[in-house]
Amino acid sequence: MSTDQHAAADALRARRSAVIGPHSPLFYDQPLHVVSGQGVWLTSANGVDYLDAYNNVPHVGHCNPVVVRAIAEQAAKLNVHTRYLHEGVVEYGEMLLATFAPHLERVFFTNSGSEANELALRIARQHTGARGLLVTDFNYHGNTTSLAEMSTGLVVREPLGAHVRPLRIPDVLSDPRSQDVVLAEALREAADAIASLQAAGHGVSALLFDPLFTTEGLLHPPAGYVQGLAALVHGAGGLVIADEVQSGLGRSGSAFWGHELHDIQPDLVTMGKPLGNGHPLGGVVTTAALLEEFGSTNMYFNTFAGNPVSAAAGAAVLRETLGRELQAGAARLGEHARTALEELAAERPGVRAVRGTGLFFGLELVDDDGKASADRAKRVVEEMYRNGVLISRIGPKDNVLKIRPPMVFEQEHLHVLLDRLGASLDAVTEPEAVAR
Amino acid sequence: MSTDQHAAADALRARRSAVIGPHSPLFYDQPLHVVSGQGVWLTSANGVDYLDAYNNVPHVGHCNPVVVRAIAEQAAKLNVHTRYLHEGVVEYGEMLLATFAPHLERVFFTNSGSEANELALRIARQHTGARGLLVTDFNYHGNTTSLAEMSTGLVVREPLGAHVRPLRIPDVLSDPRSQDVVLAEALREAADAIASLQAAGHGVSALLFDPLFTTEGLLHPPAGYVQGLAALVHGAGGLVIADEVQSGLGRSGSAFWGHELHDIQPDLVTMGKPLGNGHPLGGVVTTAALLEEFGSTNMYFNTFAGNPVSAAAGAAVLRETLGRELQAGAARLGEHARTALEELAAERPGVRAVRGTGLFFGLELVDDDGKASADRAKRVVEEMYRNGVLISRIGPKDNVLKIRPPMVFEQEHLHVLLDRLGASLDAVTEPEAVAR
Repeated sequence: MSTDQHAAADALRARRSAVIGPHSPLFYDQPLHVVSGQGVWLTSANGVDYLDAYNNVPHVGHCNPVVVRAIAEQAAKLNVHTRYLHEGVVEYGEMLLATFAPHLERVFFTNSGSEANELALRIARQHTGARGLLVTDFNYHGNTTSLAEMSTGLVVREPLGAHVRPLRIPDVLSDPRSQDVVLAEALREAADAIASLQAAGHGVSALLFDPLFTTEGLLHPPAGYVQGLAALVHGAGGLVIADEVQSGLGRSGSAFWGHELHDIQPDLVTMGKPLGNGHPLGGVVTTAALLEEFGSTNMYFNTFAGNPVSAAAGAAVLRETLGRELQAGAARLGEHARTALEELAAERPGVRAVRGTGLFFGLELVDDDGKASADRAKRVVEEMYRNGVLISRIGPKDNVLKIRPPMVFEQEHLHVLLDRLGASLDAVTEPEAVAR
Repeated sequence: MSTDQHAAADALRARRSAVIGPHSPLFYDQPLHVVSGQGVWLTSANGVDYLDAYNNVPHVGHCNPVVVRAIAEQAAKLNVHTRYLHEGVVEYGEMLLATFAPHLERVFFTNSGSEANELALRIARQHTGARGLLVTDFNYHGNTTSLAEMSTGLVVREPLGAHVRPLRIPDVLSDPRSQDVVLAEALREAADAIASLQAAGHGVSALLFDPLFTTEGLLHPPAGYVQGLAALVHGAGGLVIADEVQSGLGRSGSAFWGHELHDIQPDLVTMGKPLGNGHPLGGVVTTAALLEEFGSTNMYFNTFAGNPVSAAAGAAVLRETLGRELQAGAARLGEHARTALEELAAERPGVRAVRGTGLFFGLELVDDDGKASADRAKRVVEEMYRNGVLISRIGPKDNVLKIRPPMVFEQEHLHVLLDRLGASLDAVTEPEAVAR
């Protein structure tokens, strides 16, 4: 960037700070001032194209023309709440439910993943008459009071609720012991957590988890862990809530919804981020019995949710995702990428593990002593940015590179990503890079 | 409607029920199957145009072309979250904040009024270290757990929180005593409620209220009541939150924001419904100090909120509202309407009072014995629907007709509304109408 461009970005940042405050998060030391997007590319105010290997919200690509047309046409025709009959919400609901296992046959629409998780918790608490919650350690599921009180993955001022038990999620990529031992230990911990909730009188209302354990650092629990955990929760009378905000819509390659990777039957599935390709849209899918119980005893209404424009956006995303077979694409490209990333990791001691599945990758970075290195991860993210590729980082130690591109990512984009990633890792781990 | 049209609507209703459930609310015994909208008109599947005298979400008119174009153009150009710098959110924030008193100089964007109220409560609880809440009796502020626990205006299964005190709102239109007496009594009750929160150890975190007391039945408290209440709350260390979801953006005619009618300085203002003309958009406006306190101690992020498309929609609504001087229009037309409604009421003993302000009217209906009549109100709403005009009803006794048209309502529409309203009231209160 030129000095002028820096000055312009600084001026915009100062105005932004005076409006939404200095704490509203921004990526990068020198934030990206973005003006347009197309497919897997974002273009900055100074005309530089950045390869987007971070954003899952534009699931079918930035400014996907099918989605844009659907929104524009419906916005010009009608946008109202669901207290009048409208075809759009019904058709979208039918399409969406057809992607789920048969027992998940009803949907509540919302405007965000936060609203979806908030509603799922209400349903679970009312159904069980209990308040106790099992979550994963270093979780983030949204920004409401109930969700803040159970989060360990984000700075919030609310103390952790007395009714919340964050579970350590076992990870076979970092635990050298046999999977059987790891599995048994983790399930024992979960059973203890349940017993502790019961002993404290909270009972168990629900387990809420992200099937890819993303914020937790893209952990890989041993086979059978999630299934065993779900069985324990059901055995204690609780409900299982799968948060598909990051794992859904074919992202994992091997399943359309993340919870299917674990071969479990959740009672509630919550959705957000990619559902409307950026249009505010979320939802809760559940059983007919749970909808009936909640719906018949609560007047639940959500003004914007399920409106014709939101439904049109959601339907277009689903049509694109299914019609272009993006799940299969994620599986295919994900496999190529994984092989290449494993090679890249094998050559570099600074990369301890390649994590994730489908079009979702985590590279776990360590320093020369083999310790988790947030500093290196930050420097790789910044170096990638300087080299025109957008990624981020996650995990309790902030040392796992988060690579989660739009699902229309292709081989040619993967080449660019891998090329820049290798170079950025080398730049950061070479001695002279330390001084940067 | 023909038999075929009835059958088609019934079939759609059955499909809807199988997707979003039979409890998702619908207006009217025979719900309106809507296909398009324009200005103040909604058109049904069988080609009938309905005058919309109910919906405040399409604030600047159904499918307002300026808003539709803003959404379509921005959706085709870029839609991302706020962790990159973007002009749109800053410009919209500046425009929006310019409509508030100087002390309200920061905004958090959200996707709905529920998210806005939820966030305002988090800010208030953290600031005060207290949980106690003053609300109005028969309130509704959204669908999250925290908001359900304080609602008395909607059927929810959550019991009223022990930390919540619903206040009876005094109403000069139904209380024959002198305003001084009414005012003193109501403020004494509020002081007692505060004392009771303090005695129970909850303290006072906030007063949350709708400046027009809409759900409560469009009550008219005596002059000085809200000011006195706000002073009591501030005196007890609590914050004042004005929920502008129904009263904002010039609706009241005499003020751009509803709280200004009461000449108070709220600490937090929450917004939703009309803000994006149907595009999911809400927000919390507050002081620099409260944003700083919350923002510096919580990592608050909301994926969809403040995205370029939402900001474009919000900015277009604001431009239309200000540029077309819709507040002045609401004042002018509201005055004509009120005169006419008073005449209409004077001739009909079934109408006890004309309520509201600006383009927001409530007609309070009673039976022949002068008792609140939900039945008559329901029948008038249905009769109006048969006569091509959409209204609804509110209040703890469900007997107040709710008339709240898009702000682009004009004299010609008012004539239609008044004509149909007179006829519908007469049809319902005439003896032969009882059999309908």
